[in-house]
Amino acid sequence: MTSAASSPIEFYFDFSSPYGYLAARIIDAEAAELGRKVTWRPFLLGAVMKQTKAEPLLTIPIKGDYARHDLARAARYYDIPFVVPPQFPFASIAACRAFYWLNGTDPAKARDFALFLYERAFLAGKDISKPDSVLEAASDAGLDAAAMALALQDPAIKELLKAEVDKAIKKGVFGSPFFLVDGEPFWGHDRIAEVREWLRKGGW
Amino acid sequence: MTSAASSPIEFYFDFSSPYGYLAARIIDAEAAELGRKVTWRPFLLGAVMKQTKAEPLLTIPIKGDYARHDLARAARYYDIPFVVPPQFPFASIAACRAFYWLNGTDPAKARDFALFLYERAFLAGKDISKPDSVLEAASDAGLDAAAMALALQDPAIKELLKAEVDKAIKKGVFGSPFFLVDGEPFWGHDRIAEVREWLRKGGW
Repeated sequence: MTSAASSPIEFYFDFSSPYGYLAARIIDAEAAELGRKVTWRPFLLGAVMKQTKAEPLLTIPIKGDYARHDLARAARYYDIPFVVPPQFPFASIAACRAFYWLNGTDPAKARDFALFLYERAFLAGKDISKPDSVLEAASDAGLDAAAMALALQDPAIKELLKAEVDKAIKKGVFGSPFFLVDGEPFWGHDRIAEVREWLRKGGW
Repeated sequence: MTSAASSPIEFYFDFSSPYGYLAARIIDAEAAELGRKVTWRPFLLGAVMKQTKAEPLLTIPIKGDYARHDLARAARYYDIPFVVPPQFPFASIAACRAFYWLNGTDPAKARDFALFLYERAFLAGKDISKPDSVLEAASDAGLDAAAMALALQDPAIKELLKAEVDKAIKKGVFGSPFFLVDGEPFWGHDRIAEVREWLRKGGW
């Protein structure tokens, strides 16, 4: 049994979310300083956005311009190289399925591949939207792309992802990145400092 | 001529924005610590939301629930008493016109009345949406409600507010609260710590 004090931070993100990418680059180190591990939980933001009626952030008038400016500013602040990939926003369902397939047997490997995919998109500006692009990435990462190709078609993996997305929505996750810390919700990469303070103080 | 180093922080807010209320309660003290003054700039978020196609925050599924939770958490953090008024969201055009009328002759008085209105709504839970409610508040605040009643009908004041809203949109303001610090945009009460760091470091 895991006590609350050592429960991992649940880190929800969409592979097509640039703010999620920034969070992915720093969350494990931040959590380690707080004596916590991190459970990585990719989900499909698009499924939630149907319910919240949100539009893709960077395409929204005025707010999208701010987000571009803010993203670049945040990337400079953390000293994290960052590009918006040529095709953006992009589908992240194949990346998610690959993740949960890996996660079933080796969560650490799934986490490493998630970061690998994120960097491929937001550091190298490459496509990770299509199943073939994800398999190519898997191959580059030294993973078994042939086995992954089968997994991406596996109805059980499709169901698993669907269940994870439903669970995320049920937990109130509606943005990326989104953190659950002992059940307490924090939305946004810019709330990591608040998570830190929350854990230091034991809440308020 | 005002040098950049002493330029006031421009504080944009909508009178019906609970996060704006929280910011209004703390921004002057925060700015004073940074050696800055604050220019208060109420605007009509609804006018911008037509362009960004945003819905009133607390009415959005899932996200609205988070916002209620987050608002209460932020209010506890700052130790600021806070209620969501019975009728919410509400119109803020009369409050804005009253503000800019006062602001024309006495910005400090306008600022004080803005905070008075905000506390009336989000501390006492009273209505500030109708011209009569704003005039009643003015009377309670010891202001000349009769003169304000005329001002609320004055086409010049209506035009002035319209121009202020247009200016805000042109500057990229799309949320409440929103801060412009030497032209650098920061959205959200939760970015005040970032504003502090930005000024301390001279940007990045």
